[in-house]
Amino acid sequence: MTTTSSPRVRMSHQERREQLLDIGLAMLATRPLEEMSIELLAEEAGISRGLLYHYFANKQEFHLAVVRRAVADLTAVTAPRDLADPMEQLTTSMAAYVDYVVDNYAGYVSLVHAAAGGNEELREIYLQARDALTSRVFEAVGAEELADLGIVDTPAARLLVQGWAALAEEMTISWVAGGRTSCTREQLLSMLAGALPALVGLTD
Amino acid sequence: MTTTSSPRVRMSHQERREQLLDIGLAMLATRPLEEMSIELLAEEAGISRGLLYHYFANKQEFHLAVVRRAVADLTAVTAPRDLADPMEQLTTSMAAYVDYVVDNYAGYVSLVHAAAGGNEELREIYLQARDALTSRVFEAVGAEELADLGIVDTPAARLLVQGWAALAEEMTISWVAGGRTSCTREQLLSMLAGALPALVGLTD
Repeated sequence: MTTTSSPRVRMSHQERREQLLDIGLAMLATRPLEEMSIELLAEEAGISRGLLYHYFANKQEFHLAVVRRAVADLTAVTAPRDLADPMEQLTTSMAAYVDYVVDNYAGYVSLVHAAAGGNEELREIYLQARDALTSRVFEAVGAEELADLGIVDTPAARLLVQGWAALAEEMTISWVAGGRTSCTREQLLSMLAGALPALVGLTD
Repeated sequence: MTTTSSPRVRMSHQERREQLLDIGLAMLATRPLEEMSIELLAEEAGISRGLLYHYFANKQEFHLAVVRRAVADLTAVTAPRDLADPMEQLTTSMAAYVDYVVDNYAGYVSLVHAAAGGNEELREIYLQARDALTSRVFEAVGAEELADLGIVDTPAARLLVQGWAALAEEMTISWVAGGRTSCTREQLLSMLAGALPALVGLTD
């Protein structure tokens, strides 16, 4: 639920905007970005279009704000959890990623396509997010844990990790698109997590 | 060189069209698809725009014909060569793929982006090509060679091979975009070819 418990509580401009973004995020879960309009948001939020333009200058600004929030959420849910075992850590992060794609399939796929298809601002957000997610493999994890996974930080290793991110995205989208029948969720997680050390081992 | 040795030789409609596609392919090597126009083709071919419409109904038909030829070329140059050793076979195919991307970078990247970005006809051609290239791993190679690479044909293995294709595309594009400095061509080929058995081994 994205509405507050009491509609009489007076919200700040920032709080109201955040609430509208929550509604936008929920909309994006089940429809592609190109189908999200200020009109639809107004309807879902139960306020006038005119009032919405108080929060977002136009549709593009609304889209970008929702996508930034979506990316921040995805980055947060996949963040390392301080688990002792690096493979357990990685599997937990991949589980959060896969579940996110399952729960937000339509919007997620539309973002990946829009980013690839020439929307420069969306592409920028997408690439920053991907960069943050892959750099994390090298930076958020300690040097010891990296060594445990057999990872040495070289340009070739970073290239492989970037390839691994593309593989994880492709496999997850394809698995969901195919009705999640090609393997179980547990098999998918085990393949996605296992792929990282298997690939990075190739730089030896 | 794409012009015939003697311009006085009278070509059939089909031959002339093929010749124009050759010119289109050469144009696509150095510029993105969206910059290729009938005007530019007319200029390169040294014939009138009016005559070109005799061969291609419009820009979209010209684009699709060039892309179909590009995909056919890529499929041909990466075809298995009947080498005895499957890893040598795979490395040879990946070398042809990497060299193709290096030689046709602008057009190749624009095709990948257009296919992802919602051009349905281009997407169809792209997906068919990718499907052909990944099915080949299972079909063009004999059962014995598959076993040598540790590959069993299951839905999970096909999902991994599809992920591997996305990884190979991402790594190759990124390697070229970065000025080919993150590793040597030999290292890249060894990583791309080595990734396939390393990944498919994860289904065990």
